[in-house]
Amino acid sequence: MSTWLSNAWYVAAWDREVDSRPLARTICGVPMMFYRKLDRGIVAMRDACPHRLLPLSMGLREGDSIRCRYHGLKLGPDGVAEEMPLRSEKANKGICAEVFAVVERYRFVWVWVGEKEKADPALIPDLWPCSAKGWRFDGGYFEIASDYRLAVDNLMDLTHETYVHTGSIGQPEILHAPIETFVKGEQVFVRRWMPGVEAPPFWAEALRKQGQVDRWQICQFMLPCAVIIDVGVAPVGAGATVEQHDQGVRGFVIDVMTPQDETSHHYFWGMARNFDIDDDGFTARFRQQQGGVFLQDKEVLEARQRAIEANPHMKLSAYNIDEGGTRARQIIARAIKVQRQQPETEGAAK
Amino acid sequence: MSTWLSNAWYVAAWDREVDSRPLARTICGVPMMFYRKLDRGIVAMRDACPHRLLPLSMGLREGDSIRCRYHGLKLGPDGVAEEMPLRSEKANKGICAEVFAVVERYRFVWVWVGEKEKADPALIPDLWPCSAKGWRFDGGYFEIASDYRLAVDNLMDLTHETYVHTGSIGQPEILHAPIETFVKGEQVFVRRWMPGVEAPPFWAEALRKQGQVDRWQICQFMLPCAVIIDVGVAPVGAGATVEQHDQGVRGFVIDVMTPQDETSHHYFWGMARNFDIDDDGFTARFRQQQGGVFLQDKEVLEARQRAIEANPHMKLSAYNIDEGGTRARQIIARAIKVQRQQPETEGAAK
Amino acid sequence: MSTWLSNAWYVAAWDREVDSRPLARTICGVPMMFYRKLDRGIVAMRDACPHRLLPLSMGLREGDSIRCRYHGLKLGPDGVAEEMPLRSEKANKGICAEVFAVVERYRFVWVWVGEKEKADPALIPDLWPCSAKGWRFDGGYFEIASDYRLAVDNLMDLTHETYVHTGSIGQPEILHAPIETFVKGEQVFVRRWMPGVEAPPFWAEALRKQGQVDRWQICQFMLPCAVIIDVGVAPVGAGATVEQHDQGVRGFVIDVMTPQDETSHHYFWGMARNFDIDDDGFTARFRQQQGGVFLQDKEVLEARQRAIEANPHMKLSAYNIDEGGTRARQIIARAIKVQRQQPETEGAAK
Repeated sequence: MSTWLSNAWYVAAWDREVDSRPLARTICGVPMMFYRKLDRGIVAMRDACPHRLLPLSMGLREGDSIRCRYHGLKLGPDGVAEEMPLRSEKANKGICAEVFAVVERYRFVWVWVGEKEKADPALIPDLWPCSAKGWRFDGGYFEIASDYRLAVDNLMDLTHETYVHTGSIGQPEILHAPIETFVKGEQVFVRRWMPGVEAPPFWAEALRKQGQVDRWQICQFMLPCAVIIDVGVAPVGAGATVEQHDQGVRGFVIDVMTPQDETSHHYFWGMARNFDIDDDGFTARFRQQQGGVFLQDKEVLEARQRAIEANPHMKLSAYNIDEGGTRARQIIARAIKVQRQQPETEGAAK
Repeated sequence: MSTWLSNAWYVAAWDREVDSRPLARTICGVPMMFYRKLDRGIVAMRDACPHRLLPLSMGLREGDSIRCRYHGLKLGPDGVAEEMPLRSEKANKGICAEVFAVVERYRFVWVWVGEKEKADPALIPDLWPCSAKGWRFDGGYFEIASDYRLAVDNLMDLTHETYVHTGSIGQPEILHAPIETFVKGEQVFVRRWMPGVEAPPFWAEALRKQGQVDRWQICQFMLPCAVIIDVGVAPVGAGATVEQHDQGVRGFVIDVMTPQDETSHHYFWGMARNFDIDDDGFTARFRQQQGGVFLQDKEVLEARQRAIEANPHMKLSAYNIDEGGTRARQIIARAIKVQRQQPETEGAAK
Repeated sequence: MSTWLSNAWYVAAWDREVDSRPLARTICGVPMMFYRKLDRGIVAMRDACPHRLLPLSMGLREGDSIRCRYHGLKLGPDGVAEEMPLRSEKANKGICAEVFAVVERYRFVWVWVGEKEKADPALIPDLWPCSAKGWRFDGGYFEIASDYRLAVDNLMDLTHETYVHTGSIGQPEILHAPIETFVKGEQVFVRRWMPGVEAPPFWAEALRKQGQVDRWQICQFMLPCAVIIDVGVAPVGAGATVEQHDQGVRGFVIDVMTPQDETSHHYFWGMARNFDIDDDGFTARFRQQQGGVFLQDKEVLEARQRAIEANPHMKLSAYNIDEGGTRARQIIARAIKVQRQQPETEGAAK
């Protein structure tokens, strides 16, 4: 019984990670490899030659095809055999590697691991700030040795900033601001609205002036596994509300988690912002700083995973602050259950 | 079915290993952490926050309490919640981390992993030379990748000194001296009495004169898992007997084994002696030398553990020399069996 | 159900690897150790002392015997106890370590892991070029983290040379030459006969003249697991045929695979040749070069093993080129099945 939804789009890579050379990455337990064709379209294929299972990612690229480096079986971008090991033999079109639906959007490469017929790009979660005009997006990637859902717990409750990120982004005000948690369809929101507070250094610099601001933090969970956090400040009196707040400076912390297996996941993180969008130096400095902060999360998530395994009889508790994470997990669990009860589309197992 | 006794005192650490910063160590399969309070008393607590299981050993010390470094739940030295992650919330006294009975004695920190009601300090095995007036005790610690009972086998038969410790403490006389093994209550003794032998270099130096001596080696096994070895020499004619021998120089090799899990254990070793007790240089040199000797035992115990796993159909044999180890293992097995048959004290599972 | 034949001779080591000091090596899941006696005969013994299971390979050699480095039990080359830990005790002849039949032949040390009564040296596969007069044999050893049968697949189809050994021995002609596969008793042959081709550089140099040659590659599989490959060239018109071809230069690529466990094996490789047999420099250069080529095979075999484990639902496919490997695997499987159905020789379990 897997702990993830399989009929769903998962981020497999940053757009910049995939080029003509194959990239190997295991997504939801499936070894895959990814490469770009000459038209820059992306191929996602099971990373095992249908002949002898050598990883195709060790193979040789030829045109839009891949040739296995073992016996030279050549497969097209559709996975179908184009040339047999013995050149004199006619290619057997019945020989093929499994290919996966793949879409490039929001700077990410998305792949669908479940029933191919259901791979509708409209189901990709809406990460609009990652590619909207007037916004700048950058970030990085970590492999994290924990169940991907521990990252959801972590991101849907920012209380942890004070302790995990002491000395970086943690701030005592956050502990005192009331939080509001609510569910909208299959999304979960956790909101903190902090009116009339002193602008913390990062935001004062972004706003380019000191003084009192209204500040917000709005975490939003989306299936199968993204958390985007709307953050920013606006000068007091500019009219910003928790619902509408484009009067000052605004960013979205972007977090996308993709299961690798039951106890590890791929973590794609970054920041989309609507200020200083042409400043490459700031972009690079901020990415470096954010990477340092998220390494602290990685340390905590991996320690929790080990502790869960070392204390098998202990249950996790949930306090008030955990409501966001708890609801997000419920939505994941419910979606898995619903999917399991649906009769499989005919031919899906193909 | 565990291979160790759980209602028993185990050494968790040297006294000097525990200070205000938490020390993480797994005792009998239970992840624990240890720290000292302001009054120097020691706290032993399960190393997992009751909230999200992050190891508390990663936490922040505040007064006598520990604050989890994840969401800031603050627990008192009794494990009970003192402050919630959201400061505005009232502390829920029902939230608590498991704490363990702990006693500091004989330079060691002892912890009780079983039923808390039965944790009587009078049950701590008697290692009097480790803290008696007129004696000096020092030693070290190794983690050893073997079942802890392999160390008992090793220590209750000193025949191995000749081969394992060739070039250090091994001596051919030991092979020829008759040994006497007997059981007294739950203790096992293995005695070698070597009257009128040439003093070996180490003991001649300790005695500060050459010549014929009476020499002894008396191994004593105590539950749950300590072996202390009474060793020394007295000048011939001074009246020393195997029962009473304070006429010359005398030491106790101290060995305490604590299971970490089924295939690894903590090994606390040292030497308590009644000569040159104020000589810090000798103490340090001897500890270094003894550590080197015991590293040879570590190598052998770990090789045995691997060999047991690689030859699953082979049984261990026991020869005459193994009688001490065999009897010690019987006492451990019987104590485990007795404990299992006792009805659990009410509330013990709390 | 093991994947190998146990009543069979396996290569445990090169002759040069075994000297007076014990060599530890696990053969077909059995930890063994090997050493030479004073008459240079070889002893193969289970690598575990019958007393406490310490590996005997850690022991001390004395005459033709081995003394355990733990308590000093001394065993003769027949595995029988010669001296007890306590010298005063009479040696108990019932104490013995298991010994294995061992034969030195063709530069290798062969060991029999199954029923001792059936260990007939006549069953050793015929690797005559490794020790025949007028031939020179040299090679090396790798431990490979794959099922040993993946190496059989690899060697019984040389199509892989083009891709795996690009830049070393791969050549396009090989892809176009027709292959002929046939079974003779328990042996499998895969033959390529390439008449009137340009001599490739290596063979032109061996032949010491340029020009058209007849070339051959004949793979031969033998139980329990050897593949020897008859390779060479003869000048066109010299009368060489696929059946008889000593008119030019000839070599045998020697490959012997011995299971270590289900997912790893010992690989003994080399080249026996009938030209330049006294040229030590060429011998050394060739061995180095061949080792480089076979490291590429090691990389592929280990990647396949990992891929098989990562794609548990995928089956291996077999194409025309795989017929040799497929038939060799059938012969292994059939031999295992036959052996399993035979009533065990009485006393075999001794």
